[in-house]
Amino acid sequence: MKKIMVIHGPNLNLLGTREPEVYGYATLAEINHRIEQAAAKLGCEVRIAQYNGEGEIIAAIHAAAEWADGLIINPGAYTHYSYAIRDAISAVNLTVVEVHLSNIFAREDFRRNSVTAPVTDGVISGFGPTGYILALYSFF
Amino acid sequence: MKKIMVIHGPNLNLLGTREPEVYGYATLAEINHRIEQAAAKLGCEVRIAQYNGEGEIIAAIHAAAEWADGLIINPGAYTHYSYAIRDAISAVNLTVVEVHLSNIFAREDFRRNSVTAPVTDGVISGFGPTGYILALYSFF
Amino acid sequence: MKKIMVIHGPNLNLLGTREPEVYGYATLAEINHRIEQAAAKLGCEVRIAQYNGEGEIIAAIHAAAEWADGLIINPGAYTHYSYAIRDAISAVNLTVVEVHLSNIFAREDFRRNSVTAPVTDGVISGFGPTGYILALYSFF
Amino acid sequence: MKKIMVIHGPNLNLLGTREPEVYGYATLAEINHRIEQAAAKLGCEVRIAQYNGEGEIIAAIHAAAEWADGLIINPGAYTHYSYAIRDAISAVNLTVVEVHLSNIFAREDFRRNSVTAPVTDGVISGFGPTGYILALYSFF
Amino acid sequence: MKKIMVIHGPNLNLLGTREPEVYGYATLAEINHRIEQAAAKLGCEVRIAQYNGEGEIIAAIHAAAEWADGLIINPGAYTHYSYAIRDAISAVNLTVVEVHLSNIFAREDFRRNSVTAPVTDGVISGFGPTGYILALYSFF
Amino acid sequence: MKKIMVIHGPNLNLLGTREPEVYGYATLAEINHRIEQAAAKLGCEVRIAQYNGEGEIIAAIHAAAEWADGLIINPGAYTHYSYAIRDAISAVNLTVVEVHLSNIFAREDFRRNSVTAPVTDGVISGFGPTGYILALYSFF
Amino acid sequence: MKKIMVIHGPNLNLLGTREPEVYGYATLAEINHRIEQAAAKLGCEVRIAQYNGEGEIIAAIHAAAEWADGLIINPGAYTHYSYAIRDAISAVNLTVVEVHLSNIFAREDFRRNSVTAPVTDGVISGFGPTGYILALYSFF
Amino acid sequence: MKKIMVIHGPNLNLLGTREPEVYGYATLAEINHRIEQAAAKLGCEVRIAQYNGEGEIIAAIHAAAEWADGLIINPGAYTHYSYAIRDAISAVNLTVVEVHLSNIFAREDFRRNSVTAPVTDGVISGFGPTGYILALYSFF
Amino acid sequence: MKKIMVIHGPNLNLLGTREPEVYGYATLAEINHRIEQAAAKLGCEVRIAQYNGEGEIIAAIHAAAEWADGLIINPGAYTHYSYAIRDAISAVNLTVVEVHLSNIFAREDFRRNSVTAPVTDGVISGFGPTGYILALYSFF
Amino acid sequence: MKKIMVIHGPNLNLLGTREPEVYGYATLAEINHRIEQAAAKLGCEVRIAQYNGEGEIIAAIHAAAEWADGLIINPGAYTHYSYAIRDAISAVNLTVVEVHLSNIFAREDFRRNSVTAPVTDGVISGFGPTGYILALYSFF
Amino acid sequence: MKKIMVIHGPNLNLLGTREPEVYGYATLAEINHRIEQAAAKLGCEVRIAQYNGEGEIIAAIHAAAEWADGLIINPGAYTHYSYAIRDAISAVNLTVVEVHLSNIFAREDFRRNSVTAPVTDGVISGFGPTGYILALYSFF
Amino acid sequence: MKKIMVIHGPNLNLLGTREPEVYGYATLAEINHRIEQAAAKLGCEVRIAQYNGEGEIIAAIHAAAEWADGLIINPGAYTHYSYAIRDAISAVNLTVVEVHLSNIFAREDFRRNSVTAPVTDGVISGFGPTGYILALYSFF
Repeated sequence: MKKIMVIHGPNLNLLGTREPEVYGYATLAEINHRIEQAAAKLGCEVRIAQYNGEGEIIAAIHAAAEWADGLIINPGAYTHYSYAIRDAISAVNLTVVEVHLSNIFAREDFRRNSVTAPVTDGVISGFGPTGYILALYSFF
Repeated sequence: MKKIMVIHGPNLNLLGTREPEVYGYATLAEINHRIEQAAAKLGCEVRIAQYNGEGEIIAAIHAAAEWADGLIINPGAYTHYSYAIRDAISAVNLTVVEVHLSNIFAREDFRRNSVTAPVTDGVISGFGPTGYILALYSFF
Repeated sequence: MKKIMVIHGPNLNLLGTREPEVYGYATLAEINHRIEQAAAKLGCEVRIAQYNGEGEIIAAIHAAAEWADGLIINPGAYTHYSYAIRDAISAVNLTVVEVHLSNIFAREDFRRNSVTAPVTDGVISGFGPTGYILALYSFF
Repeated sequence: MKKIMVIHGPNLNLLGTREPEVYGYATLAEINHRIEQAAAKLGCEVRIAQYNGEGEIIAAIHAAAEWADGLIINPGAYTHYSYAIRDAISAVNLTVVEVHLSNIFAREDFRRNSVTAPVTDGVISGFGPTGYILALYSFF
Repeated sequence: MKKIMVIHGPNLNLLGTREPEVYGYATLAEINHRIEQAAAKLGCEVRIAQYNGEGEIIAAIHAAAEWADGLIINPGAYTHYSYAIRDAISAVNLTVVEVHLSNIFAREDFRRNSVTAPVTDGVISGFGPTGYILALYSFF
Repeated sequence: MKKIMVIHGPNLNLLGTREPEVYGYATLAEINHRIEQAAAKLGCEVRIAQYNGEGEIIAAIHAAAEWADGLIINPGAYTHYSYAIRDAISAVNLTVVEVHLSNIFAREDFRRNSVTAPVTDGVISGFGPTGYILALYSFF
Repeated sequence: MKKIMVIHGPNLNLLGTREPEVYGYATLAEINHRIEQAAAKLGCEVRIAQYNGEGEIIAAIHAAAEWADGLIINPGAYTHYSYAIRDAISAVNLTVVEVHLSNIFAREDFRRNSVTAPVTDGVISGFGPTGYILALYSFF
Repeated sequence: MKKIMVIHGPNLNLLGTREPEVYGYATLAEINHRIEQAAAKLGCEVRIAQYNGEGEIIAAIHAAAEWADGLIINPGAYTHYSYAIRDAISAVNLTVVEVHLSNIFAREDFRRNSVTAPVTDGVISGFGPTGYILALYSFF
Repeated sequence: MKKIMVIHGPNLNLLGTREPEVYGYATLAEINHRIEQAAAKLGCEVRIAQYNGEGEIIAAIHAAAEWADGLIINPGAYTHYSYAIRDAISAVNLTVVEVHLSNIFAREDFRRNSVTAPVTDGVISGFGPTGYILALYSFF
Repeated sequence: MKKIMVIHGPNLNLLGTREPEVYGYATLAEINHRIEQAAAKLGCEVRIAQYNGEGEIIAAIHAAAEWADGLIINPGAYTHYSYAIRDAISAVNLTVVEVHLSNIFAREDFRRNSVTAPVTDGVISGFGPTGYILALYSFF
Repeated sequence: MKKIMVIHGPNLNLLGTREPEVYGYATLAEINHRIEQAAAKLGCEVRIAQYNGEGEIIAAIHAAAEWADGLIINPGAYTHYSYAIRDAISAVNLTVVEVHLSNIFAREDFRRNSVTAPVTDGVISGFGPTGYILALYSFF
Repeated sequence: MKKIMVIHGPNLNLLGTREPEVYGYATLAEINHRIEQAAAKLGCEVRIAQYNGEGEIIAAIHAAAEWADGLIINPGAYTHYSYAIRDAISAVNLTVVEVHLSNIFAREDFRRNSVTAPVTDGVISGFGPTGYILALYSFF
C-alpha cells in the first residue's frame, strides 16, 4: 500500500475563508477531505499537514522520508525563495510532486518562479484543489 | 460527451526513437494509444495530431475551437517563444492544458520559461506520457 | 497607379468574432472592405492577404516585391520575435508601413517591442482598423 | 467643429535649419503651415505651440484640456524620460496622438523607448511632417 | 474603541543595546512604552509582540485578524524577502501600516526593497521610534 | 515657532478634479486647508506652493533654506527621475519629509522608485492627504 | 561515399540580387554550383535545399537523418530564435556544421547570438560562400 | 579559555546519510566529534547545535552573544537569502567565521552568493568537515 | 577673438556655501572670476550664466549658437538624464566641452553616467574649478 | 607566396598532455606539424608561436604586420576579455582568422563570448586541430 | 614530504608599506617568513614567488605542476577577470587553495567575484596573513 | 621642480601610422615631443614610456612612486578591464590623471567604461594629443 505525505505551506490554513474569488471557496478541511476520499479510492495511505514555519516544513519533509513513498507539497509563498525547503526535498529519497492551486505561469515576476520545482519530479499548476487529486493519481 | 483535441508540437514525431534516455522510450504512437485508451475509459472523444510548423499549429487550434471542449497541447520548443501560438490559445474559447514530458522547471535558461503557459488554464510538467493522461483527467 | 500589398499576420482571421472588447467588433472582412474603399478613393490598387505561417508571410513579402510599390503589414505576434520576417522586409525594395490595431507602447514586456519595426519606414499604432487607412494615406 | 491642440517639444524650433539630413529640410513654420492647411480642409480649429521647458509643456496640456477635443504632441527628447508630461497627458480627458518625425523603433537604446506613449491613444512614427497630418486625419 | 496589533520582526529585541549609533539608543521596551502612552492618549487598545521566526509572525498576523482593526508591522529583515509574510498581510482584512526605523530608501541594494509594502496600506520610513506613533495617528 | 515649507510637484494642481478614484476627491485647495489647520493647531508657520517646472521647484527649495526649519515635499512624477531636485534637497540644511498620496511601493516599475527619497529624512506614503498631516506631526 | 545535406534558411533565395554590398554578389544558384563542384572534387554526394518556413526546415532535417552522413546548415534569421530547429538538430544523429556568410560575432545584439550553434559540431562564420566549402572540407 | 559556538543550519542533520557523494560520508555526529577533539587540543570550549528554523538560528546567535567569544556558522541554504540571520550576525559582538563544506564559488547562480558572508570576519569554503577545524584554528 | 559661452547647471549657484567639503570652498562668483581672468589672459570673450531649469539651459545653448565659437557646460544633475539638453548640444554647431568638478567616474551608479557627454567634443572631470580653466585652454 | 602567422594563446602549450578528453590528444607540436604540412601543400610560408602573456601576443601581432599576409589566432582565454589583443588585431592590416578547438557557442556564460572575434574576418570553432587547417585553406 | 608552491599576484609586493590600514602592516617578506615557519613545523617544502604579470603567473603554475603537490595562490586583482589564470589552474593536476587577505564577500561589485575560485579546491578569505597558514594546514 | 611620469598603454606605439582617421596623424614620437616641450615650458621633469604588457605597466607605476610627483596615464584597452593596474594606481601615493585621446563617453558598451578612472584624481577625454598637455597643466 502506497503511503503519501501531503504538506500545505504558509497561509493555506486560511483557504476558503479569505479572498475566495482568488483562491476558491473550498476550505482546507474540504480540500483535505477530497484528498482523503481519493486516497481511499486509490487504496493509499495519506497523511496531511499544514505549517506556516519554514523550519517546520523542513522537519516534516525529513520525517516523511522515514515512512512515506511520495510527497505532495504546496510550498505556498516559500515556493519563491526557500532554498532550505528545496534542499530538504533534494536530500530525501521521495518522489515529490509540487502542486499550485493557481497557474503560477500566469503570475507576474517573483511569483512565477519556483525555486523548489527544479528538484521535484513533477509540477501541477492551475487546477485548484483538483491539482492535489491529479498529483495523487500520478503515483499510480 | 466531452471532446478533446490533443496537439503535439515540433519534433515530437521522433519520440521514443531518438534520445530515449532523455525523452523516454515510448513512441508517439504508443503515447497516443495510451491517450485513446484513457479517453475511452473516461467516455470522451479525442482527436490527436502532430505538427512541426507554427502556422499549422495555429490553424489546428482555430479548427479545434469549432468542435472541441478542451485542448491538450505540448508545444515543444515553440513553448519558449511562439507568441503566435499563445495568441491562438488566448483567442479561442477552450479550456487548455499545457503538458510537458519533462519537468521544465528543472531546465536551464530559455527552456524553463513558457510563453504559452500564462494563457492556458493549467500546466502539467514532469510526468512523462502520464502527463497527457492527467490532463485528460483534469477535464472530469 | 500606386500598388499596395496589405498583409495580415497570424490569428487576425479571428478578428471581430473573438475578444471583440480587446480587438474591436470589426471582422477582418469588414476591415478589408474599408481598406478597399479607401484604396478606390485614393485610386490605388490593393491586394490583401492573411497568413498564420511565418514562411508564408516571408514568401508573400518576396512576391510583393515583384509588383507592389508599398507594403502595409500587421505582423501580429510575429512582430515580437520574427527576425526572419524582419529580414524579408529589409531585403525588399518596398516602402513598408507597420500597423498595429492597439497601442503597443501601452503593453507590457515582450508585446511592447517590435523586432520588425526598425526596418520599416513608419509605424502606426493604436488607431484600430483606421490605422490601415492612415497607412494607405501615408503613401499619398 | 473639432478643436485640436498641437504641441512641439524641446529643440523642435530648430527644425529645418540644423541637421536637415536627419530631421528634414522643412522648418517648423513650414510644418505648422501644412498642419493649418490640413486643419482648414478638415474644418477643424488648431492651435500650435512649441516649448523647451517641461513645466511649460505640462501647463500647456492642462490649458488644452479647457478648450480642445484632442491633442497632437511630439514631446521631443522628453518622450524618453518625462514622467511628469506622461502624468499630465494621463490626467486630462483628451484624445492624444503622439507623433515622431523619424521611426523611433529604428533608434538605439533610450531613444527607442517612449514613456509618454503608453498613456496616449495612438502613436505615429517615421513619416516626417506627414505624421502630423495623419494624426489630424485620425480625429475624423 | 479601536484595536491595534503591533508586531516587531527579527532582531528588534536587541534594539538600543547594540549598534545604537545606527538604530538609536531606545530599547524595545522604551519604544513599546511610548506606543502604549500614545495609544492611551488616542483611546485605543494596543497589543505588542516581537518574533524572530517567520512562521510565528505569520501566525501572529492570522491571530490579529480575529480581534484587531489595524496592524502596525516592522518586519525587520523579512521586509526584503518574506513573501510568506506578504501573503499573510494580503490575506487578512486589516488596515496595515509598515514602519521602518531608518529611511529604507537611503539604503543600498536589497535593503531598499520591501516585498511586504505593496500589500500594506501605507509605509512610514525614517522617523525612528516616532514612526510607530505616526502609524498610530494614521488610524485616527 | 517652527517654520515649514510645503511643496507640491507637477500636476498636483489637478487633484480632486481629475481621476478622483485614483488620487482622491479632495482638491489641492482643500488639502492645503487641512495642512493650514493642522499647522495652526501645532503652532507652526507653513507656506505652501505648487509648481509644474523642475527649475521652479529647485528655486523654491533654495528659497526655503533661507527661512524654514523643515520641508515637506511631494515631488509628483519628478520623484522618479529628478536628480536635480535630489541635489537641491541634498544641498540645503533642512529636515525634509517626502510625502506620496498613494503607496508607491504598490506601484509597478519606475513609479515604485524614488530618486529623491534617499536624501530625505523620512518618507510617508499611502495615507492620502493625511500623509501631509503626519509629516507635519513628525516635526514635533 | 559521404552524403551531405545542405540547407539554406529563410530569405537566402534572394542572395546576390538584393543588398549585395552586404551579402555578396553571388546568387544562391552560383553558391550552390560552387558547393556541387567542391563536392564532386571531394567525391561526396550533396543535396541542397532552401526553405523559408521553420516547419519545413525541421522536416528537412528529419528527412536528412534518413540518408545523410552530415548536415551543413545556414539557418538565416532562425539562427537567433528557433529552438525548434535546434531541437531538430539535436534530435538527429548527424554531424552538423553551421555556416554564416558574414561574421556574426561582429553583429550587434540579437544577431550575434546563435541558439542553434550550441548543438552543432562546429561553426564557420565570416567567409562568405567559401564558408560552405570549408564546411564540406571539414567532413574529410 | 576561548569559548566558541558552532551552529549548523538547515538539513545538515542529514549529513553523511544522504547524498554522500556530494556532501561526504561523515555524519554530523562524526563531524561534531572532530570539532570537539580539535577544541580539546586547542584548549577551548565549544558548544554545537543544529537548527532547521531561521528564527531558531537567530535566537541561537543572540544567545551565543551572552557567553561566547566566537561563532562558527554554516548557514546551509539560508546562506543565500536570510537577511534576518545576516542582521543577527551583524548585531552581535562576536568574531564570526562562515564555513561551507563544498566550494560555493564553484556553484551556479544563487548558490554561489552568500548574503551572510559580508558581515562575517572570514569565510572558509570547499574543505569539507576540515573547514570547521580550520575555522577553529583561525581563533588561535 | 574667440568667444566662449560658459553654462553652469542646477544648484551650482550654491557652490562654496554648502557642502564645501564635497564641492569645494570656492563660490560660483569666485570660480567665474577665475574663468574671466583666464579668458582675459588667453584673449577670448566669455559669457557666463547659471540656470536651474532644463528649458532655460536649452534656450541658452540655442542662443550661444548665435554668437559663440565654443561652449563650456557643467550640466549638474541634468548630466545624468537630460536627453533634451543632449539634443540641444547635438543640434548646434559649437565645439562643446563638458566639465565636472569631481571625478564622475568615481561615483556610484547613475551619477557615473553622462547622457550629454557622448555629443560633446571632450570631457574634463575631477579637477575642481581648475577644470573650467583647462576647458578654456583646450580651445587654444 | 602567401605568408601566414599562427599564434597560439595561453595554456595551449599544455595541449594533449592535460585534459585530453576535453581538448584532444594531439600535442601542440603535433598540431603545429599538421599546420606546417598543410602550409607546404598549399605553398605558403607559416610561422607559429605560442605565448602565455597578453603583452607578448600584442607584440607578436605588431611584428606579424611587418611581414605576413594573414594571421591565424587562437587567443585561448584572452578571447573572452582581452580588449588589448582586440585593439592589436584591429590596428594591423592583416586578414585575421580566429580559431577555437571546441565549439565556443556550446559553452556557458563568459566562455561563449569572444571580444576579439568582432574585429577578425572570420571565425572557425569546434573542429579541433582541423580548425587551423580550415583557416589556412580560407586564405586560398 | 609534501611540496607546496605559494604564488602572490600583482601589487602584493607593496604589502605592509602602502595602505596598511586596509591590507595590514605585515610586509610580504614578513608574511613569507610566517609561511616558511609554518611549513617547517608541518614538515613540508614551500617555494614562494610574487609576480605582477599574468603570463608569468601562468608560467609559474605550469612550472609548479612539475614538482609540487599543492598550490596556494592569491591572484590579487587577477582574481576578478583572469580567465587565463583560471585555465592554468584548471589544466594542472594540483590541489589548489585560493587565499584572500580580506573578506572578498564584503567587497562591492567586481571585487566580490572570483573567476578563479570555481576551479580551485577551496577558498579562504578574510583572515589576513593567517589565511596562508590555514591554507597550509588544509593540506595536512 | 615637479616630476611627472607619462605612461602610454598597449598598441599606442602604433599611433599615427595606423588608422589615423580614428586616432589622429600624430605619431607617438611627435606626441611625446609635444609633451616634452610643454614640460620644458612649465619647468617640470617628464619621463615617458610605452608598454604593451599589463605587468610591465604595473611595475612602471610602482617605479614612478619612487621618484615622481604625478602620473599621467593612458591605459589604452586596459582601461576597460585591468583591475590590476587599478590596484597599482590605488596603491601608490601619486596624483594620477587619466588621459584618453578620443571621447570615451561617445563609445559603445565596454569601451565607454573605465575601471581605472575611479581611483585617479581626474580624467581628460576627447582632446587628442592636447589631452596630455592639459593633464600637464593640471599639475600647476
